[in-house]
Amino acid sequence: MTASPDTGATRALAAYTVATRFDALPAPVVHEAHRALLNWAGCAVGGSGHVTVDRAWRAVSPFVGPAQATVLGRATRADILHAALLNGIASHVADFDDTHPDCLVHPSGPVASALLALAEHQPASGRDLINAFVAGVEVECRIARAVTPTHYDVGWHITATAGIFGAAAACARLLGLSEAQTVWALGLAATQSAGLREMFGSMAKSLHPGRAAQNGLSAALLAQADFTSAETGIEGKRGFAHVMSTAVDFGPCLEGLGERYELLQNTYKPFACGLVIHPVIDACLQMRAEDGVRAGEVERIDLEVHPLVLELTGKATPTSGLEGKFSVFHAAAVALVDGAGGEAEFSDERVNAPPVVAVRARVQARARGDVALDAANVVITLRDGRRCERRIAHCVGSREQPMTDGQLADKFRMQCERVLGAGRSEAALAGLWQLQDAGDVRALASALA
Amino acid sequence: MTASPDTGATRALAAYTVATRFDALPAPVVHEAHRALLNWAGCAVGGSGHVTVDRAWRAVSPFVGPAQATVLGRATRADILHAALLNGIASHVADFDDTHPDCLVHPSGPVASALLALAEHQPASGRDLINAFVAGVEVECRIARAVTPTHYDVGWHITATAGIFGAAAACARLLGLSEAQTVWALGLAATQSAGLREMFGSMAKSLHPGRAAQNGLSAALLAQADFTSAETGIEGKRGFAHVMSTAVDFGPCLEGLGERYELLQNTYKPFACGLVIHPVIDACLQMRAEDGVRAGEVERIDLEVHPLVLELTGKATPTSGLEGKFSVFHAAAVALVDGAGGEAEFSDERVNAPPVVAVRARVQARARGDVALDAANVVITLRDGRRCERRIAHCVGSREQPMTDGQLADKFRMQCERVLGAGRSEAALAGLWQLQDAGDVRALASALA
Repeated sequence: MTASPDTGATRALAAYTVATRFDALPAPVVHEAHRALLNWAGCAVGGSGHVTVDRAWRAVSPFVGPAQATVLGRATRADILHAALLNGIASHVADFDDTHPDCLVHPSGPVASALLALAEHQPASGRDLINAFVAGVEVECRIARAVTPTHYDVGWHITATAGIFGAAAACARLLGLSEAQTVWALGLAATQSAGLREMFGSMAKSLHPGRAAQNGLSAALLAQADFTSAETGIEGKRGFAHVMSTAVDFGPCLEGLGERYELLQNTYKPFACGLVIHPVIDACLQMRAEDGVRAGEVERIDLEVHPLVLELTGKATPTSGLEGKFSVFHAAAVALVDGAGGEAEFSDERVNAPPVVAVRARVQARARGDVALDAANVVITLRDGRRCERRIAHCVGSREQPMTDGQLADKFRMQCERVLGAGRSEAALAGLWQLQDAGDVRALASALA
Repeated sequence: MTASPDTGATRALAAYTVATRFDALPAPVVHEAHRALLNWAGCAVGGSGHVTVDRAWRAVSPFVGPAQATVLGRATRADILHAALLNGIASHVADFDDTHPDCLVHPSGPVASALLALAEHQPASGRDLINAFVAGVEVECRIARAVTPTHYDVGWHITATAGIFGAAAACARLLGLSEAQTVWALGLAATQSAGLREMFGSMAKSLHPGRAAQNGLSAALLAQADFTSAETGIEGKRGFAHVMSTAVDFGPCLEGLGERYELLQNTYKPFACGLVIHPVIDACLQMRAEDGVRAGEVERIDLEVHPLVLELTGKATPTSGLEGKFSVFHAAAVALVDGAGGEAEFSDERVNAPPVVAVRARVQARARGDVALDAANVVITLRDGRRCERRIAHCVGSREQPMTDGQLADKFRMQCERVLGAGRSEAALAGLWQLQDAGDVRALASALA
């Protein structure tokens, strides 16, 4: 259906949410939901030991309620609101989560973190969970599109500000709320929507999807208890869109609801660093694997990249893992030396490892306005005079070159094995691929603890 | 001290917060803190049985943590984060809380709701509580002034958006955080600042000070665990002020910190309805008390009021208590019949009571552009031809005619006696007036349960 903007976006999105049925979902959407949930779970488990999550847990642990839900990757449980918070933080802390390229939302963190916690309290089948997840991502990304690009440009972290709507809608669907209650859930999400880009570079950035998950879940629970909100929380004169954006277009928000799926636009990061570095890593890994380039033979490496790459990641001599994530020089070197671009390659140890440092000193980078942001040209000259070259038009993980199911599974293993062990990681992975057949998702949640 | 805007508002306000000492507070500020806390406690106890609070409690009760803190006016306890939430909701639900007239913040709700809950977990003296409260109100109202009036005008409910800073600062002070941690607490408040005026007229409006209290307290607890934020959360390019307001002036925010006190501008509502109706009630009560006007003798009542009064409260024939709050006609009638303007006078029963309806039908109102918003002219013509008149220049409860301590105490009794009983209400009132002498505020909290 295509709702008219005059219907009111809040009611139209609520009506869509209430009407969603698993059986009506196209097969590619169901498959993409499995991929997104798998990627989210891997990120949340992989990030669960990060100091950011440790400190959040230290701050809230004296106040948590009953042990209702899994805190992913940790040997503890919490009430569902705090589980949603902590899993949302963990899923974002490595900047390894999914991305909707058109609206810059990382869609799964707020939605899945709220939903899995709720499903541990209110038992649900895998099909129920997937249906609610798809509805949540749809509402989240469509609201984001209504205010893109001005909302993000002015300084809102859209993963938080739109994410809370996704969490609220998904939880409203899983709870089986009425249309009126779903309108309230979206209104309560609107009036809690928050998160500033000023926080980038601090732990507060990861708080954003966590709080969006927690407060979105809370919005649905309040609405279930008939706690009312305005019925025009999104489109009203003093509602979300007009207060938090200087330009609003409800066309892409309301067109083709239930026919066109934003989830099919979702992309996944193959490498544990900023997206702009990915094409260079892709090129280096290809030459290592296909042309047999070895780090010890490298005379020089020449990069041609979009100007933004050097603006954001131009740090030539990083000294920590975190700085390494903002160094295209380190990324090229470590990809050639280690043959990977995962979390391990952006550790303090690898950034300071002599073989990596030696190659890094041989990397030259040049900004070119005619190279696209998901493209790169990389030329490696070897000591023996041989010359290898890769021109990446769209790097792996982009919408045009999506990660394969196998690559996503490898990424999951890389993130989870050191936390869960290989056996439990493999079991969780199998459970995630078979989610739509699960009669009760609580077993899967336990497998991720 | 007067901090330069160049210092950065976030750091300047953090430094001020850390430096505050009870012994340095001027006596009038300490006295006003007692008045504000007493008014807040009365509102929270008085509102505690409202259906809005019932539904919030129903929604969250399965998820609350240890019984650490008092839910005011209720026979239950909750973890401090949920106690802050529920007490903040209750304090605002009757629209009876305090008001800073220059920035339209209701200052005490977010700050006191967070602070009293925290003080039950981390024992504090009355002097510590008062010092932290004053710091919180100061930070809250000064941040509000930096973005007044454009921030409120565009649609933000400033009690929520500024209130979270007040709660964070007050709790940071009570926890004894360092300056660096207080900067983070303010940054974490900035990135959770939310609350839309679109919600006015729904339960979500009362959620605002509750969530501001809860998330502000959470910001301080996270900062205590060294969970970091940006250090420019308020003044940064993508921070609170520039993202959430189109005009910003840090002058009134930073001038005279610790010398000039925003708390001294605070006002308290004598009547349980919108401020714009107050001058008319004031006039009617004066004529009833001083001129002996009796409702049964009234031939007609003529009101001259600011145009906004009829725009907001022009409902001539209300049928419910809530509609009565938006009827200057009912307010005038019930004040004459009952001699009061409290919660009881805005009940469904009083709005439909025949003696009140009879007088209401005799009320005429006329808008006049030359009558100020806190003024009114009221003429009562009696059956015997007698004519009484009151020209109210500044109504009771305005900054120019502040409620006396005795009036505040009577308001507290009116709000609390039906919840706590007369004996316990009187004991709590005595405890609130003597707060600065309390060695541990937990006794006071228990007295308000």
